[in-house]
Amino acid sequence: MDFQNFSELARVARGEVPAKVVFRGGNVVNVFTGEVLQTSVAVTDGTIVGIGDQYIGETEIDLTGKYLCPGFIDGHLHLESTIVTPAELVEQAVKCGTTTYIVDPHEAANVSGADGIDYILDETEDVPANVFVMMPSCVPSLPFEDNGCTFDAAEMKQYVGNPRILGLGEVMDYVSTVGAVPMMVEKLALFDGMPKDGHAPGLSGHALNAYVLAGITNDHECSSFDEVMEKRRLGMHIHVREGSAARNLEPIVRGIVETKQDISGFSFCTDDKHIEDIHTEGHIDFCIRKAIACGMKPVDAIRMATINTAKQYNLHHKLGAIAPGMQADFVVVDDLESVAVSRVFHKGMDVSGFHAQPKLPMDSPLRQTVHSLPVQPEQLHLPVGESNAVIRVIPNEIVTGHDTVKLPQKDGLFVADTEFSKIAVVERHHNTGKVGVGAVAGFHIHGGAIASTVAHDSHNLSVIGDNDADMLLAIEHLRKIGGGYTLVEHGKIIHTVPLPIMGLMSDAGFNVVQAELSAMIAKAHKMGVPEGVSPLILLSFLALPVIPALRITPRGVFDVEQMQFIEG
Amino acid sequence: MDFQNFSELARVARGEVPAKVVFRGGNVVNVFTGEVLQTSVAVTDGTIVGIGDQYIGETEIDLTGKYLCPGFIDGHLHLESTIVTPAELVEQAVKCGTTTYIVDPHEAANVSGADGIDYILDETEDVPANVFVMMPSCVPSLPFEDNGCTFDAAEMKQYVGNPRILGLGEVMDYVSTVGAVPMMVEKLALFDGMPKDGHAPGLSGHALNAYVLAGITNDHECSSFDEVMEKRRLGMHIHVREGSAARNLEPIVRGIVETKQDISGFSFCTDDKHIEDIHTEGHIDFCIRKAIACGMKPVDAIRMATINTAKQYNLHHKLGAIAPGMQADFVVVDDLESVAVSRVFHKGMDVSGFHAQPKLPMDSPLRQTVHSLPVQPEQLHLPVGESNAVIRVIPNEIVTGHDTVKLPQKDGLFVADTEFSKIAVVERHHNTGKVGVGAVAGFHIHGGAIASTVAHDSHNLSVIGDNDADMLLAIEHLRKIGGGYTLVEHGKIIHTVPLPIMGLMSDAGFNVVQAELSAMIAKAHKMGVPEGVSPLILLSFLALPVIPALRITPRGVFDVEQMQFIEG
Repeated sequence: MDFQNFSELARVARGEVPAKVVFRGGNVVNVFTGEVLQTSVAVTDGTIVGIGDQYIGETEIDLTGKYLCPGFIDGHLHLESTIVTPAELVEQAVKCGTTTYIVDPHEAANVSGADGIDYILDETEDVPANVFVMMPSCVPSLPFEDNGCTFDAAEMKQYVGNPRILGLGEVMDYVSTVGAVPMMVEKLALFDGMPKDGHAPGLSGHALNAYVLAGITNDHECSSFDEVMEKRRLGMHIHVREGSAARNLEPIVRGIVETKQDISGFSFCTDDKHIEDIHTEGHIDFCIRKAIACGMKPVDAIRMATINTAKQYNLHHKLGAIAPGMQADFVVVDDLESVAVSRVFHKGMDVSGFHAQPKLPMDSPLRQTVHSLPVQPEQLHLPVGESNAVIRVIPNEIVTGHDTVKLPQKDGLFVADTEFSKIAVVERHHNTGKVGVGAVAGFHIHGGAIASTVAHDSHNLSVIGDNDADMLLAIEHLRKIGGGYTLVEHGKIIHTVPLPIMGLMSDAGFNVVQAELSAMIAKAHKMGVPEGVSPLILLSFLALPVIPALRITPRGVFDVEQMQFIEG
Repeated sequence: MDFQNFSELARVARGEVPAKVVFRGGNVVNVFTGEVLQTSVAVTDGTIVGIGDQYIGETEIDLTGKYLCPGFIDGHLHLESTIVTPAELVEQAVKCGTTTYIVDPHEAANVSGADGIDYILDETEDVPANVFVMMPSCVPSLPFEDNGCTFDAAEMKQYVGNPRILGLGEVMDYVSTVGAVPMMVEKLALFDGMPKDGHAPGLSGHALNAYVLAGITNDHECSSFDEVMEKRRLGMHIHVREGSAARNLEPIVRGIVETKQDISGFSFCTDDKHIEDIHTEGHIDFCIRKAIACGMKPVDAIRMATINTAKQYNLHHKLGAIAPGMQADFVVVDDLESVAVSRVFHKGMDVSGFHAQPKLPMDSPLRQTVHSLPVQPEQLHLPVGESNAVIRVIPNEIVTGHDTVKLPQKDGLFVADTEFSKIAVVERHHNTGKVGVGAVAGFHIHGGAIASTVAHDSHNLSVIGDNDADMLLAIEHLRKIGGGYTLVEHGKIIHTVPLPIMGLMSDAGFNVVQAELSAMIAKAHKMGVPEGVSPLILLSFLALPVIPALRITPRGVFDVEQMQFIEG
């Protein structure tokens, strides 16, 4: 409640003057009582002032026969993963009814630190939606990472008290958390009593108790209902995740329904969902539909998408329900079976007219984040021994195998072919000249190379190919244009998607980006990358040294299970 | 979570060192999942560090066959109403399992302002329970009240940020709230986003919408389930009240059970419950038992007594559940049918040894709060006209009737008798000399007078009798001893309960107080006060000008329905 205009709003609530807008006669979903009641909702200055048919509006919107829900909330997402601007993501997702976004700008912080976070905040300041930020908690994600910036407790302090900062973001480094490493404890203490997002796939027993003891309030990594229940018993709130890759909704919702769990401890999130998937199947509205299809009562699914999430983030006095004093964020749906979104309102205004516009100045330092020395041919050399550790790609998985193989060679150096590709990760933040080189089985590219500056979590420049010349060309091209994706064949640059904003995002517009991206992916498959292996998603995860079994960073090949680098 | 000792606690959670205490093998009530699971709870330094039989304790407490619940929470109470010290109330109620108290020191603030609030805070600092304070919002309760202190937004500011201050207390003045009167809006704005306790008996429609718009988050005045549902639909949390006088639990809980309402929007409170009733029937444990008797599932009743209330007051990261990071406040009960409390722990320590000790220095100004000029005989004169407004006492009610009667008289002045008593209210805070006089039907005292400095909300000195001499003696005696209750018969003081602390409370110990009080009440009945009329409770409410129909203040007889004083 903004008390500056309370006196005026109270007059409307008392019925002495008309409301600016009355949403008349819809079936209003009441997330408090679980009822659906035909009534009217009076709105002035973006705030709900009263519920009831007695209110009269200067403007009236007839909702007869329709259903009015509170705006949907995405409990956890990384905006950067869409490779378009945050505003452009919102443009797509708000039309699906998602009016609130709890965002962890982990990627932006890894590249540009506080400047990256400020970019996310600025870019979403004026969108017709509520975008809140959780402080990225693990930047760098591991002590030996070569990322762009360190974002520690001292850096975070400037954000404490900012009403758009709700707490500590995805605490992926559960080892430091459970182990009470001071650098992590400082961050936990800084957000004492505030929400702290968890990331604890499979964590259990002693370690899970210690993780919850640290004040981690929720988790979005559960993939089975048993895992859900162990975490719920310790008080963790569960974000049921349904994104582009990770799709955990069905087993969890079926478990909730079958065991008649109290749903107040659950909500929905997308984590990472691509724009094209949002366009095709929807966003949080898709979660609601899928939950209903799994047997959940529609109002319970809507509660998971609204008030439950608002409560987890202490936003429930303003968001997540249709009641006096709440912000007038509404989703009009045709019925509670299809949950087909027909109109969406943010602060009482129809959002359909919103089109994201590029905001970042052309001379912004965030457009100049590729700082790497030119790579010399010999930096791509990989000496071959009796046997080498090889990263084996597994179709439809982001985990890899760890093979030990005698590699093809010439003069003691690895020579890539269609069976064994070469991969290199070039440090691109601080001109350190570090280049890690390794071998990959199962990628099968021939006659060229593909490269990316999107490479979780440090976002160095990753390239994979079957010959050094094309790899060097791809590296050089991305250096020159300041980041993005590129594909080289037989010495020629065939496709490029520039991602000038931190090497992560484009503001050229989704349609432009998507056309070039689709062509690039199709071409990669033609060059031998098997179906079931998404070349750019693979590249974006092969440098993430927390996913088993083998990864590669600018310092070389890393054995995740042993938590150590493999010696040359 | 206190991060100062997190490193040590995390070692216990990880199982590397034993816990200080393990509560072994009880049936643990899980308020998150609704399950009751046999397991063990590890506690170190007053904090729950882990759940599971794998934990080992330096000390172990065997709970085999018992049930372990989180400590119970009283969602709203006025400590002063017990007439003993806050610590003494806690001593009684904590043994019933109530380990957390959300207190509104409305009476203390009306007499002594910030000093009164500080007294409540200080007195409960070291008790084996968590006592939180809501800022009294209506001091004075009405603009024309002669109370001790004005406690406005400027005075409140000093408490904002104090971790024991949770929000704005019982907003009784719903007229100013709904009407957006600036003096009230300032207080509402000061606690923006924090809990705000409501007091809205029967408020409905437009006015209720405006009241909720003002950010009032809960209500404890509902007496019917229909009233509950109107408030729940607008998002208000409902404290189901079961005190000494107001007993609203049964119809509300039966409504919840019959309509299968989601219980997350409900909790319990006592509001005002006398020590003798706590002793006889219990406190929040009594609410649980009664709710179960009304058909509620035991775990749901326990949720209402624990986590639901903790969430309403943003305490749920520390209180209201048995999970890592929570304070080790436990209630051990024999089973979930009787809910018979066998042991209670606060921060892991057994509370049974706690005995409240007087703390307030003998020379504290809070012991010198009766500041009234001697009352002259003619100040008790009440001129009689053709007819006078008479306050009619209704047995077993605190509302009164409004009669218009030709009163017995001599020389144009009212002469009390056994049918019509005289009542006087003497301003006792600022030596103003104001005395209001009126007539009461239905009290029937003869041969004396009874007086009290407990008189909601302004706590002036109230006296009722059948002759002026005994009334003057009673007034003078309470002036002399600094407040309390006294009964005079035929010119002699028969019984006195001194309430030296603000004229509201005694630190002589409940047994002493209770013995004299019982004798005084018995004597009053012998002097003619009918059964069904509690003489001191009546006196304490007759000066409260918000309860229909007629009241009396130092300014005279007040018509609550017309909201005006009665002339002459």
